[in-house]
Amino acid sequence: MTATARILDFLRDRQPQGPCLVVDLDVIAKNFRAFTRAMPATRIFYAVKANPAPEILQLLAKLGSCFDTASVGEIELVLAAGATPDRISYGNTIKKERDISSAHALGVALFAVDSVEETEKVARAAPGAKVFCRILADGAGAEWPLSRKFGCDPSMAEDVLLRAHALGLHAYGISFHVGSQQTKLGAWDLALGQSKAIFDALQSRGVTLSMVNLGGGFPAKYLKPVPGTGQYANAIQAALAKHFGNAIPETIIEPGRGMVGNAGVIKAEVVLVSKKHANDNQRWVYLDIGKFGGLAETMEEAIRYPLVTTKDKDAKGPCIVAGPTCDSADVLYEKTPYNLPLTLTVGDEVLIESTGAYTTTYSTVAFNGFPPLQSYVI
Amino acid sequence: MTATARILDFLRDRQPQGPCLVVDLDVIAKNFRAFTRAMPATRIFYAVKANPAPEILQLLAKLGSCFDTASVGEIELVLAAGATPDRISYGNTIKKERDISSAHALGVALFAVDSVEETEKVARAAPGAKVFCRILADGAGAEWPLSRKFGCDPSMAEDVLLRAHALGLHAYGISFHVGSQQTKLGAWDLALGQSKAIFDALQSRGVTLSMVNLGGGFPAKYLKPVPGTGQYANAIQAALAKHFGNAIPETIIEPGRGMVGNAGVIKAEVVLVSKKHANDNQRWVYLDIGKFGGLAETMEEAIRYPLVTTKDKDAKGPCIVAGPTCDSADVLYEKTPYNLPLTLTVGDEVLIESTGAYTTTYSTVAFNGFPPLQSYVI
Repeated sequence: MTATARILDFLRDRQPQGPCLVVDLDVIAKNFRAFTRAMPATRIFYAVKANPAPEILQLLAKLGSCFDTASVGEIELVLAAGATPDRISYGNTIKKERDISSAHALGVALFAVDSVEETEKVARAAPGAKVFCRILADGAGAEWPLSRKFGCDPSMAEDVLLRAHALGLHAYGISFHVGSQQTKLGAWDLALGQSKAIFDALQSRGVTLSMVNLGGGFPAKYLKPVPGTGQYANAIQAALAKHFGNAIPETIIEPGRGMVGNAGVIKAEVVLVSKKHANDNQRWVYLDIGKFGGLAETMEEAIRYPLVTTKDKDAKGPCIVAGPTCDSADVLYEKTPYNLPLTLTVGDEVLIESTGAYTTTYSTVAFNGFPPLQSYVI
Repeated sequence: MTATARILDFLRDRQPQGPCLVVDLDVIAKNFRAFTRAMPATRIFYAVKANPAPEILQLLAKLGSCFDTASVGEIELVLAAGATPDRISYGNTIKKERDISSAHALGVALFAVDSVEETEKVARAAPGAKVFCRILADGAGAEWPLSRKFGCDPSMAEDVLLRAHALGLHAYGISFHVGSQQTKLGAWDLALGQSKAIFDALQSRGVTLSMVNLGGGFPAKYLKPVPGTGQYANAIQAALAKHFGNAIPETIIEPGRGMVGNAGVIKAEVVLVSKKHANDNQRWVYLDIGKFGGLAETMEEAIRYPLVTTKDKDAKGPCIVAGPTCDSADVLYEKTPYNLPLTLTVGDEVLIESTGAYTTTYSTVAFNGFPPLQSYVI
């Protein structure tokens, strides 16, 4: 149940028109404290891309969070929220050299790389900065597994970091990402073993690495139960001890979905319930929000959000759930139909839970003339 | 070759920063005239969702086009561009009743439906309006085939239109959509046969239909050659004559991609060229635009845009093409790698051709902190 009393009160009192996301800051504060309590020795870099709302960044800056950013635009948002540049990581491994220069000028001194080419850009545009090299991790077990887009083979990380050192950068550490919404607790073990091997290889070349960036992947609860933050922390701690013994490095994590996912609820409305044929048993339920209005993560039905209606005590039956645009790809759940009340009808409200992450900014500018998803942070 | 001299001159003279779309209005005017010449008896309803830039709407309004709209937002854009409401169709079959009311208040009197439920909304909110019923068409042969999201079984269209008539609406006609980027010229034949059967069934119940909306589906040229507008017109004319004999109804078409697709070119930049492993032969080429910056139609590698570089005379080799965001789904071409010059390097300009349709408005608000796609209409 992610619709908190504060969110429900807000919706009842304000009656906002059109689809909107409501985020409860109290839940985010609670999540932040759960991370710090579970991993007291680990610095938290909130993945700004999950939800860059100024109120969220201000809260996390006040609570002492650091920030993982993907662009100069995000760096500027974080600075505007009151964080100092030493709390910012430029975590995108694909950066224009002029954007690296801009970040450097703003005081950012920690950069992700996964190739010699990118390392050379950082050396030119942000001389002396700290760099960490992202390695390819096995995303098995993740609901939104990562492609091979980011990271390099562990065997190449050594070259990348040696090149960084030779160019006067501070070869600082290793990062990996086990895949978003990762529910296999053992996923970090393999990557930490690979990280230790790179630490050793660099040490034998006279370069001492200091940091392991454990990435994100901490899940939000959608329909299926997920392990708690404490269980993740224990699994990671055990893997660190196993591989690094009593020389455990500095660690950072980059939760995004795990920090804000369960803090938000989208209020939507049923626009149409219809069938395609008089003798058809297949209902189509069309909502006023779809793939292009903020629910892009339903792509290939990857993430199955909980849908809550006021009629959930009535008998339910399967239906196809689709969005409001004229794009035929704007269908949310069809391969695995969704069970919704048979009494559901035009105008009914539908709450889409656990939608605090990766919704507002994924929303299109104006596809089909629909405005972007409204957001209220309370 | 869709980069016209005007577009190339603009890019050379203005040197716009960051990824941008440049649209040549002369090409759109030429496309409009080709449609009117090929189908002189057919009214053209431009599918505004393809590209709602004010300059494009103003040009088409001046040329005498009508407009197919998906939302009240698009209706307002069309009215602002100088078209009168009698030239507007509200073509989305999924509409909130209050949006139908707003459209009715703005003077719009032509609505699409595909269910009894939607027809009842139109009868309440836009009494006396003309409605046409969309039927499900077989999308085989389309590069971006439509799901079953829109349209009802032809057998149900009769009920829908009889209900419209009973509710005091003007049961006006039938519409269908053969699928976007449709290259099978025979695709219209089946749907026109079904339309005629519905005309006859309604006539036997005392209701005379007047119009067939032939929808869109007219292709833009990407990498593969496509039939010309004249060939489409001939195929449609033959199918109309075959099924309707000498009682050919009023017809309308809704070109979107076919009107503006080849009028636009996106200028992008190579951000990084790298490999994942020292002995890897697989290049990754990262551009400053991807799935979330306007190229959503590369989803499942559906549309393969022509990529043009200044090094196209050099030897080429396969590479994976990806976008600049931290989302691992932001990969454009991987299953079928793209052949690009082996000399391609960071900072090189890449022109992405035939991108006038379904790019600007598909762009996300601010995913990863990147601004939406810039657009220049010249």
